[in-house]
Amino acid sequence: MSAVSDSPSSPPSAPPLHPDVAHLACLLGQWSGKGRGVYPTIESFEYYEQVTIGHVGKPFLAYSQKTRHAITDLPLHAESGYFRPVGSDRVELVIAQPTGIVEMHEGVFHATEQGCSLALASTTVALTPTAQQVDSVTRSIQVHDDLMTYELDMAAVGQELQHHLSARLGR
Amino acid sequence: MSAVSDSPSSPPSAPPLHPDVAHLACLLGQWSGKGRGVYPTIESFEYYEQVTIGHVGKPFLAYSQKTRHAITDLPLHAESGYFRPVGSDRVELVIAQPTGIVEMHEGVFHATEQGCSLALASTTVALTPTAQQVDSVTRSIQVHDDLMTYELDMAAVGQELQHHLSARLGR
Repeated sequence: MSAVSDSPSSPPSAPPLHPDVAHLACLLGQWSGKGRGVYPTIESFEYYEQVTIGHVGKPFLAYSQKTRHAITDLPLHAESGYFRPVGSDRVELVIAQPTGIVEMHEGVFHATEQGCSLALASTTVALTPTAQQVDSVTRSIQVHDDLMTYELDMAAVGQELQHHLSARLGR
Repeated sequence: MSAVSDSPSSPPSAPPLHPDVAHLACLLGQWSGKGRGVYPTIESFEYYEQVTIGHVGKPFLAYSQKTRHAITDLPLHAESGYFRPVGSDRVELVIAQPTGIVEMHEGVFHATEQGCSLALASTTVALTPTAQQVDSVTRSIQVHDDLMTYELDMAAVGQELQHHLSARLGR
């Protein structure tokens, strides 16, 4: 596994990784790449994405993300939150979004020879009064060496749970 | 009001502030200072805090925060989220925390001659299965020129809503 101590998210002065998140080191780093979004209620779109996953020596990983539209270069989505390991094979994820949505996920973590995978499903999606309706979200993340891919499915605005986003990011 | 275009959160290449958040410009910047935490179930503590409030030209402000213990210098708390204006005098706030807690707030915004104030109360506090019980939170934020002060009250772990945190931060 690469880039724990020399990751951009972990400068030389950073403390050692907390043992409770050692198995999540596969996720650490600054990631960037391209993704595609589809949904029945919108026009399909492509986006550039930057993801940062870092740590401060405590038993969680900090996560933040930003996307820009691939054609207009305008900012699209952003979100930030935290991965919390539960033992060695389960993970909780909490996320806040500027769209007025918070997601809480639980899921399964698998270490693989070249990386890891996470399969998360929302347990709570809470909305501010002015947010669009989102009922549930699943997030599947795969890391293989320095490649991260993810798929996000969403049930929202009256539509059943279905594919919404996929992306390929490099570290 | 200072530091919109030359704030560390808004580099020269940053887009102009979205008109819907123009009245929230008082909050923008990198803030640092000292705070104090008390609660019946814990020992009182003092902390150093760094707060960043920035924007990307869209109608929300991004918020992140980190604290370190004033004596041990170890990382204490962190949280991240977004301020969403609702018209000119109300604000929604969504926050994720590495403690497995998400908070959604609604509240009132007041512009003052030298700054602004926000009085927020949680409408939803959602917890992952491994998080400690938190029932409700209120957050009061005042900005006067380059001074930000805040008070946070919390009902948690069986205790009634009461004072938990206060801090003074400079921009």
